[in-house]
Amino acid sequence: MLVVQKFGGSSVSTIGHIERVAAKIKQAGADGHRVVVVVSAMGDSTDDLVSLAKAANPDLPSREMDALLATGEIQTTALLAMVLLRMGVLAKSFTGRDAGILTDHHHRRAHILSVDASRLQRAIEEGIVPVVAGFQGVDEAGNVTTLGRGGSDLTAIALASALKADRCEIFSDVAGVFTADPRIVSDAVPLDHLSYDEMVELASQGAQVLQTKAVEYARSNQVVIYARSTFHEAQGTRIVAKNLDNPSVTAVAVAKKIVKIGLVGVPDAPGVAAHLFSRLAEKSIDVDLVIQSLSHDRLNDIAFTVSEEDLEKAQHIAQMALVELHGADLIVDANVSKVSAVGSGMLGRPGVAARFFQALADAEVNIQMIGTSEIKISCIVARNDAERAINALHQAFALGRAKPESNPSTAN
Amino acid sequence: MLVVQKFGGSSVSTIGHIERVAAKIKQAGADGHRVVVVVSAMGDSTDDLVSLAKAANPDLPSREMDALLATGEIQTTALLAMVLLRMGVLAKSFTGRDAGILTDHHHRRAHILSVDASRLQRAIEEGIVPVVAGFQGVDEAGNVTTLGRGGSDLTAIALASALKADRCEIFSDVAGVFTADPRIVSDAVPLDHLSYDEMVELASQGAQVLQTKAVEYARSNQVVIYARSTFHEAQGTRIVAKNLDNPSVTAVAVAKKIVKIGLVGVPDAPGVAAHLFSRLAEKSIDVDLVIQSLSHDRLNDIAFTVSEEDLEKAQHIAQMALVELHGADLIVDANVSKVSAVGSGMLGRPGVAARFFQALADAEVNIQMIGTSEIKISCIVARNDAERAINALHQAFALGRAKPESNPSTAN
Repeated sequence: MLVVQKFGGSSVSTIGHIERVAAKIKQAGADGHRVVVVVSAMGDSTDDLVSLAKAANPDLPSREMDALLATGEIQTTALLAMVLLRMGVLAKSFTGRDAGILTDHHHRRAHILSVDASRLQRAIEEGIVPVVAGFQGVDEAGNVTTLGRGGSDLTAIALASALKADRCEIFSDVAGVFTADPRIVSDAVPLDHLSYDEMVELASQGAQVLQTKAVEYARSNQVVIYARSTFHEAQGTRIVAKNLDNPSVTAVAVAKKIVKIGLVGVPDAPGVAAHLFSRLAEKSIDVDLVIQSLSHDRLNDIAFTVSEEDLEKAQHIAQMALVELHGADLIVDANVSKVSAVGSGMLGRPGVAARFFQALADAEVNIQMIGTSEIKISCIVARNDAERAINALHQAFALGRAKPESNPSTAN
Repeated sequence: MLVVQKFGGSSVSTIGHIERVAAKIKQAGADGHRVVVVVSAMGDSTDDLVSLAKAANPDLPSREMDALLATGEIQTTALLAMVLLRMGVLAKSFTGRDAGILTDHHHRRAHILSVDASRLQRAIEEGIVPVVAGFQGVDEAGNVTTLGRGGSDLTAIALASALKADRCEIFSDVAGVFTADPRIVSDAVPLDHLSYDEMVELASQGAQVLQTKAVEYARSNQVVIYARSTFHEAQGTRIVAKNLDNPSVTAVAVAKKIVKIGLVGVPDAPGVAAHLFSRLAEKSIDVDLVIQSLSHDRLNDIAFTVSEEDLEKAQHIAQMALVELHGADLIVDANVSKVSAVGSGMLGRPGVAARFFQALADAEVNIQMIGTSEIKISCIVARNDAERAINALHQAFALGRAKPESNPSTAN
């Protein structure tokens, strides 16, 4: 079996941790598997580089940020290869470029255009374990690019697809995908499996095990994913094409760091919203929920949410739009969160929404905005209420009790 | 004028230092020059990486060491480019690979085979200041290689040659090449100029301003070098084809960390020395001085010196050789230093050697080994005597007084 194993930053944060990862890789080899490894930067090393960069240039010029940040993953590859060599495992480090990952030229959020895995393929045939730097590639001009948040997952899944690997194992410090964040919901349990669609929704709603872009890539290319813990032996959560259990709610998630920006009293004319949102899109800001409400005198209020890290840029754009549109006021609420429930069986079961809102009402959580998809319900709530809300939802849909067969020792 | 400016690790050890370097580069641009910049890794960052590597694998596998260490210089290029952009200077970071530096496949001590400067040339024509990572290249298979000690100087000089630059300025924390190390000899003064040949000898005798390989490359390719201080405005020392002053002694140098290894009682047969030294060469250990002395009963003593960092490997090889040759004993003296005097006018002036040895005798320094070239005399002395010896030599050849026109404020 050919397996791509990806290890995140907390799994490689020290040489001791890297040794544990190396032992896992060696074991997979001893079990008869061929292994390709993808790693993130060590622990907080990326944060350290970002601090240096902020001191160098607060604008964080994106081409140079990519050149800088990509070094973190490369350092991990070299150190892990060294440990593997010491353990008698033939290993070689590869940068994203070496691994043949070609991207577009959008620095810091590059998309993978193609993967030429011939160099990795050759290494595998020579009995070498390739250790690949995640999160990075090169554009056609040879500039180093990075793939954005969760980019190492994407690297692993793209390589698994290019190499036609039997599975892609995403190792982190949690034992798979849970019914809720176990740090917030104490009786959350790991899921045995869920569908790509559910995982995409959960990832975009704040579950941090896997990133949206990576799961979408896996869905398009039918890559079998296992989300596993580096520090436990449990098999973890399998992500598959279809969740045959078809549950109304599979899991709940909370995205804590959300901000709500409102433009009060802008004209109720065609193109006003488009004007604002196209500017936000130009700056690569993901707008999540939107409310437009007719107030009075043909004036509208528009409110939208973005993640906290985009606050400054989004606020600036909103302020400019407000001035141009002769709006009355800009309201910024940096203290909201988003709680969501996701389930592939939600579609066509009207009772689910009712139970969702009843649970929040019973917990005395006020709902500020609502967003839905076929398999998801999301609400914006005050940040103070977020943990209470997510616990209420987890309980209302009996998620903690839904998996009585799970081993509770793997639940943290 | 096209200038290549190289800044060493202590010149870029903090963002504050990098800002000072950026201001220098900006000024060169404002003065009408086109500038290509080469940088080393920040301050002690290479040492930090080596510590991690030692923990990962004490053998320090060389391919992976190169992959790891090369990231240090890349980080500096990105940060310096960011600072330059903030100051309004168009700048772009380049790795060794990006700069077209092709080397052989000898990791950690790679030789430059060729430089394809077309990408840099294009950037310069677009008005961009290329900021290139020193110390690194790639071999023909695409593996990252490093150039060994002083490799960033070599990068700068090789690029200056490939770009036909008018000069290559090597910036460090000292104001050029001195008549002696000013930390040891208080009245040492900076030299206005010296020849490539003198600089090569000084570098190999322990002067740390420029490395031997880099100066040899400059000599072969007639690259005009200026050794300057990042922190002073003085023009520094010019290194030229011929020192027209033709002084008997231009400067003195001390290499403190030398070790002497002696094999006692090995057979006086052809090939014995070759056997030992070819093994040392195989491990890329530079043997410096050698003494062979016939003792008795057709048995020889062989003693040689290496730099302290090669002690462990050299001792191991010598021990094996001793056993194979049925020698009597191995003597290791890890407490010696080498003092040298260099001058292009030394050739054909027999009085120089006499004055050299008289100076050491007057200072009561015992001489353990002697080595000479046409423009150099070196002695191995006890490490305790080294500073006294070098001061005595500096005084005997009147080097401190030799440059009364120099501005003493630049002498530290």
